[in-house]
Amino acid sequence: MNAQPKGRLIGVGTGPGDPELMTLKAVRALGEAEVLAHFAKRGNNGNARAIVAQYLKPDVVELPLFYPVTTEIPHDHADYKAQIQGFYEESAEQVASHLDAGRTVAVLSEGDPFFYGSYMHLHVRLASRYPTQVIPGVTAMSGCWTQAGLPLVQGDEVLSVLPGTMSEFELTRRLADTHAAVIMKVGRNLSKVRRALEMSGRLARAVYVERGTMDNGYSMPLAEKTDDRAPYFSIVLVPGWESRP
Amino acid sequence: MNAQPKGRLIGVGTGPGDPELMTLKAVRALGEAEVLAHFAKRGNNGNARAIVAQYLKPDVVELPLFYPVTTEIPHDHADYKAQIQGFYEESAEQVASHLDAGRTVAVLSEGDPFFYGSYMHLHVRLASRYPTQVIPGVTAMSGCWTQAGLPLVQGDEVLSVLPGTMSEFELTRRLADTHAAVIMKVGRNLSKVRRALEMSGRLARAVYVERGTMDNGYSMPLAEKTDDRAPYFSIVLVPGWESRP
Repeated sequence: MNAQPKGRLIGVGTGPGDPELMTLKAVRALGEAEVLAHFAKRGNNGNARAIVAQYLKPDVVELPLFYPVTTEIPHDHADYKAQIQGFYEESAEQVASHLDAGRTVAVLSEGDPFFYGSYMHLHVRLASRYPTQVIPGVTAMSGCWTQAGLPLVQGDEVLSVLPGTMSEFELTRRLADTHAAVIMKVGRNLSKVRRALEMSGRLARAVYVERGTMDNGYSMPLAEKTDDRAPYFSIVLVPGWESRP
Repeated sequence: MNAQPKGRLIGVGTGPGDPELMTLKAVRALGEAEVLAHFAKRGNNGNARAIVAQYLKPDVVELPLFYPVTTEIPHDHADYKAQIQGFYEESAEQVASHLDAGRTVAVLSEGDPFFYGSYMHLHVRLASRYPTQVIPGVTAMSGCWTQAGLPLVQGDEVLSVLPGTMSEFELTRRLADTHAAVIMKVGRNLSKVRRALEMSGRLARAVYVERGTMDNGYSMPLAEKTDDRAPYFSIVLVPGWESRP
């Protein structure tokens, strides 16, 4: 008697928010998956799950992977790292048990799975052990510059993708040394991001975007935003192509 | 008697190459467009047109926009700039004449329209005059890291997107100062790109990719590639996330 063939792991990019910005391939994968896994915070199913809702099989088995509650531990602390590593190990084994039973498991990833995606933590633990497919998606940053109607980079320009968590000095230095920039994870860093843009001479062109391509998405020139409140996943864009057309 | 209502301009991202990596929204737009415009070289319809072939309406009017033959003029020469500007002006007016006649015009853009896309040259000339919609797509670089099975960036890392046309010094400096990098327009620049990767200490992790997600796409460690022949649209990736998992 042969062993049960292993199931297939599929990392599915859900795109930036509008369900119609899923790829045909991602929608097909959701129609084939017997198990649907996604990372989430307890009490909040998250954007990725909402984006795919209409494309799921009615009998799909859901496997939500809830992040541990680590809000009281600093992220650079060894205890935090150990806890989050343990969480990814355990999540990978939960997914593996379905794969061992021969089931196809789709793991959702907002945007593109290999571009700052949580799916990467499962991929590096499982892709060498199981047949694996990754389906790229439209990134959150593409969704944001589309929301803003903002042509971002052209020709021989340099684009820098920068986390808003960097020091003010580093942000300023890098903003002064690039044609175009995408600043991610703005959230609580907005006042610092604003100062770095001002010091690097880029504030006048900067555009603030929330929830690009989602129903309630919007954008505005950052210089016109009068407060520094911003959700974690908001983005600031600095377009290049100053010599256009 | 009312004037004919203006037609709608749609910039359609076709994704990186695999027709199944088009978004649902892009496919729907192609089903609605009465005119299909795309940039091409004479004698070569180009990738974008090939990607969408199966989704077109049988009676769509095709408007290929052929780049002028400028191979004998250096790209930084005023004559080249004047000729290419004139070409974009003329292309915009060709599209505008269809929009004035009330027709919906889809303009194809490989990857994402606002990310190094030729469509941008039409957008800046027409978006203020006509109802305009832009549909983001999976970028060529996402297609390449997916082809390579290569998780690219994670957490608080910096990504630099660099044109292979830069000077060796600039490429080296920037490669030494980033977590992850995407080097575009490799083509004839591959030997220079290789030297810059070596000098910045990044050659061992660099991956060379051609035609990501297309039928004949492939990838290999750059250090194992024994020649410096590369098509124009090949890409070199340097992944971050060295501390994984």
